[in-house]
Amino acid sequence: MTLVTVEDVRKASNRLAPYVVHTPLLRAPRLSTELDLRVLVKPENLQRTGSFKVRGALNTLLSWQESGSLPRGVVCYSAGNHAAAVAYAGQSLGVETVIAMPHGAVQSKIDNVHRFGGEIVETDDLIGTCNSLSAERGFPMLLPFDMPEVIAGQGTVGLEILADAVATGTAVDAVLVPVGGGGLISGIGAVVKSLSPRTLVIGVESEASNALGLALNAGEVVDLPARLPTIADGLAAPRAGGHTLAHAQAYVNCMVEVSESAITRAWRDMVDATKLVVEPSSAVGLAALREISLADMGLRAGMSVVLVASGGNVDFSRFADF
Amino acid sequence: MTLVTVEDVRKASNRLAPYVVHTPLLRAPRLSTELDLRVLVKPENLQRTGSFKVRGALNTLLSWQESGSLPRGVVCYSAGNHAAAVAYAGQSLGVETVIAMPHGAVQSKIDNVHRFGGEIVETDDLIGTCNSLSAERGFPMLLPFDMPEVIAGQGTVGLEILADAVATGTAVDAVLVPVGGGGLISGIGAVVKSLSPRTLVIGVESEASNALGLALNAGEVVDLPARLPTIADGLAAPRAGGHTLAHAQAYVNCMVEVSESAITRAWRDMVDATKLVVEPSSAVGLAALREISLADMGLRAGMSVVLVASGGNVDFSRFADF
Repeated sequence: MTLVTVEDVRKASNRLAPYVVHTPLLRAPRLSTELDLRVLVKPENLQRTGSFKVRGALNTLLSWQESGSLPRGVVCYSAGNHAAAVAYAGQSLGVETVIAMPHGAVQSKIDNVHRFGGEIVETDDLIGTCNSLSAERGFPMLLPFDMPEVIAGQGTVGLEILADAVATGTAVDAVLVPVGGGGLISGIGAVVKSLSPRTLVIGVESEASNALGLALNAGEVVDLPARLPTIADGLAAPRAGGHTLAHAQAYVNCMVEVSESAITRAWRDMVDATKLVVEPSSAVGLAALREISLADMGLRAGMSVVLVASGGNVDFSRFADF
Repeated sequence: MTLVTVEDVRKASNRLAPYVVHTPLLRAPRLSTELDLRVLVKPENLQRTGSFKVRGALNTLLSWQESGSLPRGVVCYSAGNHAAAVAYAGQSLGVETVIAMPHGAVQSKIDNVHRFGGEIVETDDLIGTCNSLSAERGFPMLLPFDMPEVIAGQGTVGLEILADAVATGTAVDAVLVPVGGGGLISGIGAVVKSLSPRTLVIGVESEASNALGLALNAGEVVDLPARLPTIADGLAAPRAGGHTLAHAQAYVNCMVEVSESAITRAWRDMVDATKLVVEPSSAVGLAALREISLADMGLRAGMSVVLVASGGNVDFSRFADF
């Protein structure tokens, strides 16, 4: 399988520039003091549509446009951030978007699709409905993670992290990346292992949703044995993909799993300490730094670590539990 | 009265560089679309201690240090952000801090003082207790807004806004500044009216707490006739100061008042749209853009306006109402 290269990501970055935010690289002094590390946060909650997903969706459409194959519309399935990302990408380029979402999706996610002109089809069979829609309308599917163009788009997060670190004279010893299907860590890994090979790329999954870890252990994509509930709903992929598995095999230093209780605590503390509205998925990196020994991840005290905050789309009612 | 100059603010900026965050200047596309303006946010919730106040407190201590008069300790009174700012400034320079806080102050504010080694004295008479503490311990008072060093420190917010705007080729047609005692707008006004005179400096108060507006109308500092409750607790100054009044007279284009209900709505929407944890005080600028006609503030559609988000110290339980 051909892997995404840093050149693919650089091209993606040039394509995306007019449409996405170059999010800042923020220091997190409270977390740094607590953990005896230099903790930095890459706040993709501040990204258009509230998550990094817009990078991959837009890069896919822009790549198709460059090659003269931009369709009149696209379909996708998503309960969350990919839905809004596709809607925004479509609206930006004048492409219709039809999005299969589960019955009973939370209102804020629905609003975030309608805001960008997406058409929602509610269903209990996301993939089946998406396939039917694709056939009926003649629109291609824009997958949430397992496409090279999506991976290259997500990789621009890594490009920005390294550029901003260099600009401020900051070393990056490790990047901790939330992992669902693995698109984000695939892209970040491709960049980091090319431009800063000694930087550790660490993937963090919920123990309730460890599809990429399972695939790495099995050496092939496997289905999760059960769909367990997770507070980190943004990471709830039922399986990894062939592309993301291959990238993880090539570019990821280690994968770790964190407990649901650690994610819940880390989420609250991350919002409090960073003053960023992030969703629970964004807090798995902090959970890992607390729940797993530094040595097990190849880290030691004093190192400079980046926590990628993947998104900020969360129902405010959940803050009531804080 | 001598006014703070842009040179004073530049000196403050050099002093503060090792201790404070140069917060980014963020675009707010959802608010821009809603308001038909180009809305930018200066997120001082991301500042050390969670508010801009640390700039003024640190500049005061650093100025005293430069002149060889750094005391062994300082006292201050505050129910909120100034308390943590003084504690942080003191800890940074090895100066004891004794802080008079009201009985029943919220736990997060108390924690934010203890985190930086401040000593808290609970009292129902903030100013009286602070005066006594100052006399007993022989420590000078570090006032929340009405000191030139504090105003110069807060002015660095304005310096950063203009520098980042220039760096990105962004015009700044207006800066909307939350106003309590007036320290922040005094400093920002000094910078803006020197470096970008055509940029409008607009102060926004809650109608429940309009001390600076009253002083400007009266031509002298006057006490608020009544202490009305306000959701924007960070702006609840009982009176402006002689220094801040003089700066407002010289540098502020207009002052407006917004209703409590407009602040409440703007607060929720600002958190949702920007994905920043901001306190209600930070949302008065958005409330003004919605509640007051643009023309009344000298604005028109398409202009580029900066909302200064003054801080992010808020009890999460309040998000439950969202």
